[in-house]
Amino acid sequence: MSQTPTPDPQPTSEVDAGGASLALGLEPWQALEEIIDSGNAEHLTMFLNLLVPADIPYSINQLDEDRRTRLFSMIDPELAADLMEHLSDDYAADVIEELSPQAAAAIVDEMDSDDQADILAELTHEDAQAILQEMDPAAARDARNLGSYPPDVAGGLMVTEYLHYDQNLLVDDVISNMRAHAQEFSEYLVVFLYVTGEAGRLVGVVRLRDLLLAPRSARLSTIMITQPRFVRATDTLDDLASFFDHHSFGAVPVVDQQDRLLGVVLRAAVQAALGERADRLLMRAAGIVTGEELRSQPMFTRSLHRLMFLVPNIALVAGSTSIIAFHEGVIQRLSALAIFLPMVAGMSGASAQQSISVSIRELTLGLIRPRDTLRVAFKEIVVGAVNGLVIGLLLAGLAWVYRSHISGLPIAVGVAFAVNSIVAVTLGGIVPLGLRKLRLDPAMASGPMVATLADIASFFLLIELARHLVPALSGAA
Amino acid sequence: MSQTPTPDPQPTSEVDAGGASLALGLEPWQALEEIIDSGNAEHLTMFLNLLVPADIPYSINQLDEDRRTRLFSMIDPELAADLMEHLSDDYAADVIEELSPQAAAAIVDEMDSDDQADILAELTHEDAQAILQEMDPAAARDARNLGSYPPDVAGGLMVTEYLHYDQNLLVDDVISNMRAHAQEFSEYLVVFLYVTGEAGRLVGVVRLRDLLLAPRSARLSTIMITQPRFVRATDTLDDLASFFDHHSFGAVPVVDQQDRLLGVVLRAAVQAALGERADRLLMRAAGIVTGEELRSQPMFTRSLHRLMFLVPNIALVAGSTSIIAFHEGVIQRLSALAIFLPMVAGMSGASAQQSISVSIRELTLGLIRPRDTLRVAFKEIVVGAVNGLVIGLLLAGLAWVYRSHISGLPIAVGVAFAVNSIVAVTLGGIVPLGLRKLRLDPAMASGPMVATLADIASFFLLIELARHLVPALSGAA
Repeated sequence: MSQTPTPDPQPTSEVDAGGASLALGLEPWQALEEIIDSGNAEHLTMFLNLLVPADIPYSINQLDEDRRTRLFSMIDPELAADLMEHLSDDYAADVIEELSPQAAAAIVDEMDSDDQADILAELTHEDAQAILQEMDPAAARDARNLGSYPPDVAGGLMVTEYLHYDQNLLVDDVISNMRAHAQEFSEYLVVFLYVTGEAGRLVGVVRLRDLLLAPRSARLSTIMITQPRFVRATDTLDDLASFFDHHSFGAVPVVDQQDRLLGVVLRAAVQAALGERADRLLMRAAGIVTGEELRSQPMFTRSLHRLMFLVPNIALVAGSTSIIAFHEGVIQRLSALAIFLPMVAGMSGASAQQSISVSIRELTLGLIRPRDTLRVAFKEIVVGAVNGLVIGLLLAGLAWVYRSHISGLPIAVGVAFAVNSIVAVTLGGIVPLGLRKLRLDPAMASGPMVATLADIASFFLLIELARHLVPALSGAA
Repeated sequence: MSQTPTPDPQPTSEVDAGGASLALGLEPWQALEEIIDSGNAEHLTMFLNLLVPADIPYSINQLDEDRRTRLFSMIDPELAADLMEHLSDDYAADVIEELSPQAAAAIVDEMDSDDQADILAELTHEDAQAILQEMDPAAARDARNLGSYPPDVAGGLMVTEYLHYDQNLLVDDVISNMRAHAQEFSEYLVVFLYVTGEAGRLVGVVRLRDLLLAPRSARLSTIMITQPRFVRATDTLDDLASFFDHHSFGAVPVVDQQDRLLGVVLRAAVQAALGERADRLLMRAAGIVTGEELRSQPMFTRSLHRLMFLVPNIALVAGSTSIIAFHEGVIQRLSALAIFLPMVAGMSGASAQQSISVSIRELTLGLIRPRDTLRVAFKEIVVGAVNGLVIGLLLAGLAWVYRSHISGLPIAVGVAFAVNSIVAVTLGGIVPLGLRKLRLDPAMASGPMVATLADIASFFLLIELARHLVPALSGAA
């Protein structure tokens, strides 16, 4: 999670703890268990420092809760904070919750300010307060400030580790100051210096390279880029994503309503937040309503979160199958329909999913907007018709192979799919635009909604067509 | 696509072309059409410079092919290259293909070296060669070199715009050289300088801040960080993602087998490539086999690409419905089963999708590996059983509401779902691990495969249970 481009202290040698463990006939996590059980903190620190990064989350996840707690109490807080950076926020918070507030505070103290806020946001209010009280007062104040913003706005994503100087200082003053604080600043992102004026207002930025090339006696105000780009603390993640999409900076300063400099949001922090949000959305689209589930969580929590999607989903499934229930008389006289109802519905659902994904991609790329609904519908009707014809012919052929003795049924299956392909593909294309228009997330709600509509249409079409095209059914209710 | 953190030339004023167009009663893309039709290149350049970034892809996508070609012939290549950076690679390549090789080459010449390689890779071999012949020879050589690597390895992702100096130079020499080439270097990413030794081998890196704080008379070899981290030109995107996950640099040097410095891969380029790959995978998972479709493409191309998924998918759907076909005699005697077969299958599919997504997330986070199949199976069996019980009871209740007169049917529906929930949820949990074990992409193939298996199991379970639990069916074939 730390994005500071400082050199990594890890040696380039080929020695790694995993390799050494395997040489002893142990998996890395088994070696880790043994070292924890031995209680030797020095060996544990050495082992963790040599563990290759990819083995860190896996090995920690293999430990039981008791060993995990002991591990984080045995090592120094700086190493613990480093390990936490290899875990997702929800996982790291689960580990933090298992520790005493003192031990937790010491670890959180060592994290970057934006990571502190992320982890604290995952905890219960009581746990977060208990940890804040044990933290270094200045760091706790920063974390509280960052935590007062929602996690997905600029205020919640910014770091407070950056360099800022008054506009009246000379280049020489600044370089002396940087030299004097070289140790403290070593973890900072230093590509830009931020320049402030009266009352801490942001008035300019200086690129490090310009500082390097400027005369030592120049005043910052004369070498800075004036009217710098900035974001407000309340700007959303989407605002920030758009900003970094359209500007090539690695970081952007954050100001309050009075233009006072509050912090800096790094491009990498925005990309990480977007990745986490995409992850949550994918989980939600797949029916994990909270967007987060780990198998290390209690079974009943996991079960409950999944039921929150499955129970309302019953209504959708019942809605579409009620069409069949209503026409059960037709099935009674032509049981073969029971084979082809799920077949036509399944293929229609697959066709709809394709046009949903194209619309979501074009919305994301900014190529279409809700006002293009008619144009998109027209383009999808054509593709839906062509594919409906091809797949409809194949399904009719399949129906003929399965049940050639029922005259009219292959035609009904083929025509039902052909017509429903147009319906399903067109709906798949336009429903995401409608959801965007309503300011809902197209990725989340399109799938189940279009699938239900496509099911209803396919059940209805096949039953109605069979009633008219299959002689054995003519006149059926 | 350019990631160089240089200040953006765009003014901070509130004037934008979109706002100005709207004041005239025109949408930005309508104003753009009018200006193209007027043929006034100066107005066009001014308008495009004032267009807010979010309006760029949309407005270009609204133009017909003829106007789009004229637009890119009327403006200077540098502005054209800027506009291209707002389009996805496949879209930009489609636009480039519409231009003459001379016009295309002038635009490609103005792009960053990694973007050049990306765009050229999207073109046919002939088109790419025609453009390379018209390009600046040095740029064409760089583009050919980058293009000789697959797009998703370090060699294909690196840029050649970076600073490198011999280890024997003095700090003062380097600063003089930077000053002399300030204009040329203004677009470069300058956070690190790369230091080379004999035969161009990479021997160290110098952070710009260390250059700033070092004595002018120091030799680079004395202030550089030795044994720097690097990647090989053939390292894959996954290798790079893992590198940047575990090291906090903003960029990494690329070397060949003889350790000679070839270029630099930026963190942002890796993140962009990962985003594009995730995009392609999502499209593929939704049945767009090529991973790319734009509605601006010819209708038959789009139709064909979708059929490439739909046609083989018929086999999966036919496979599961053949269970029903085989037991049609049962349906004939109990037509109500036709209602509940799609219902049980639909709810089982939704349950399976949840555990698939949890496994894919845990695989991505590095928390589980294929060897944990048994542990994952056990955890999912428990959740599948609990949710099977809850949802099974609800479905049985629904079956009772729908068809209370058929004794035994509600129990068959409830038990079929309860058992199938365990099967579907467990399969959903372990199939992604099996696919990872086989080195296939779990996100791509898990969905249709598990859905088919869950359908087969649910059709089989419900029909068999009904045969034994519904008195009206006892003894049915």
